[in-house]
Formats: sequence, structure tokens, C-alpha cells
Amino acid sequence: MAFRLASNRLLRIAVPTTRFASDKAAPWRLGRLNHVAVAVPDLQKATAFYRDVLGANVSDAVPLPEHGVTTVFVELDNTKIELLYPLGEKSPIAGFLKNKPDGGMHHICMEVDDIQAAVESVRAANVRTLGAEPKIGAHGKPVMFLHPKDCDGVLVELEQA
Amino acid sequence: MAFRLASNRLLRIAVPTTRFASDKAAPWRLGRLNHVAVAVPDLQKATAFYRDVLGANVSDAVPLPEHGVTTVFVELDNTKIELLYPLGEKSPIAGFLKNKPDGGMHHICMEVDDIQAAVESVRAANVRTLGAEPKIGAHGKPVMFLHPKDCDGVLVELEQA
Repeated sequence: MAFRLASNRLLRIAVPTTRFASDKAAPWRLGRLNHVAVAVPDLQKATAFYRDVLGANVSDAVPLPEHGVTTVFVELDNTKIELLYPLGEKSPIAGFLKNKPDGGMHHICMEVDDIQAAVESVRAANVRTLGAEPKIGAHGKPVMFLHPKDCDGVLVELEQA
Repeated sequence: MAFRLASNRLLRIAVPTTRFASDKAAPWRLGRLNHVAVAVPDLQKATAFYRDVLGANVSDAVPLPEHGVTTVFVELDNTKIELLYPLGEKSPIAGFLKNKPDGGMHHICMEVDDIQAAVESVRAANVRTLGAEPKIGAHGKPVMFLHPKDCDGVLVELEQA
């Protein structure tokens, strides 16, 4: 099934005049942009920028030791910006901030209605995933990251909606 | 007025226990995330990724010579991803792609209901703007970019809603 799906999807790549994807046969669907994640070197300063300069509602800082980050959620009308600050010695964003001391956009997270089917599908299209199986992400839902080299330099997170 | 607003906003920075911004007195309001912009080195390949691998609806490629880019709009349920590809000799994203040949996240665009008031306000908070006055952006509406060094390494575009 996965292979047949992959073939259908790859077939559409070969038809550049197709404007809209016909996903009626797809067993999963892409949904909302759940969040944009921004790695920041100073969480208080970054929180103040969004809260006090831009006037957004922001959450308290939420330590997520199992993910190696402390997060502040910035609420926009239709989605969230998540500020990520390193927590612990093996934080996954420590290296990012070493390369970009000012901070920067770290990843985007898009929702899917079936993470397993989505993972099978992207792999069949030769998009590499980071890890063998979906793991429980920062929101308590299964997530999978896709390799930036296969996504136009963007670290893409897919999250079960 | 602008100065008093700035004082109020800066005052809130000094009160870290404030969880939510009180923007009742603010003459402008932050709204939706309009789009995430991704600079890509291969527009057809990037379009195929979002359309054929992820199953998103995508627009035709739209050349915007006055902005030095060709754009493809990727529709998510709640916002857009905009794929940017250099157009012309003075494209503003050519340098970005030289530094990041795989592509990458270029900027985020958030909507405001009063671009002039927003610009006065962020400047009063010592956030630098790129340019003296708002210009007409890719959607035909006034926009202003904020300096990444003042926004946690993120190039932020504010757009009149």
C-alpha cells in the first residue's frame, strides 16, 4: 500500500502542470501549521520582545527536561511561535545557538492526521526522517522530524494532530 | 503618544511576573501569522515536496520582479508557507542562498492592524526597522521588516492586515 501510494505521489511530481494536489486517495492529510520554533540565547529578552514590544500573549516558561529545552509559547491569532532555550547538558539546540549566537528560526511544525502513514509516505518519496519511529513530542503527541537536506534546508516536524 | 506608549510597554518589560500583555491601551494589535517564507535553490523541487510529498495545495509560480523573487504559495489550513526563488540580478535572497545553498527559513510575517502605529511603537522600544517608511509588499499591502539582531536572529516582517 505504501509503495502504491508513493508511486501515485511520485507520479504527480512528473506532471508540473498539476496545480493542486489531489489527495483524495491519500491515507493521511496535512493540516495546520502548529508552530514556528525559534531558538533564542536570552529567553527573558525574547519573551519581552513578543509580549511587551509586539503585545502578544505569552505563556510562562515551561521546562521540558526530556526535550532539553525550556519553552515559552507565543500565541498569535492562528498559530504559535515557540521560543526554545537550552536546558541541560545535551540540549538539541545548544549546537544551533553556537552557530547562531543571536538565535534564529529552528524548525516549523505541521500537523498531520496520521503520523504513521505520513512517515511511510515521506520515506517512500526518499525524504529522510530523523529517527526510526515517531516519538512523543513537546505537546505529548507523536512527532517525527524530517531531514533538512530533503526539505529545502528547513527542519520540518510533523505532529499527530 | 508614541512616547507614552513606549514607556508603558517598556515598563512591562521590567515586570517579569506579567504573564499576558495588557494591550487595551495600545493603538495597534498583532494578529495572524501571515506566512513563513522559505528561500529555496530549486523552486520546482521545493514545490513538488509540498505538493506531491506532503499533499498541500500550492499556487502557480508568481514572478514578482519588483521584489526580486518568484514565489509559490503553499496553503496550510491556517496560514501559508511562501517559497522564494531569486529573480533578477538584485534579488534580496541571492545572498541568503549563497550562504545557505540548501535553502532555509528566510523570514516570518505577522499581521498588524495599523502598520504606522506598529512601526512607531517598535522603534520606541529600540527595535530597528529596515527602511524609513513602510513599503508595499508582495501582497500589495504596506509592510516593514524588523532587524534580525533585535528579534532573536529572526527577520520579522510586519504587514498591514
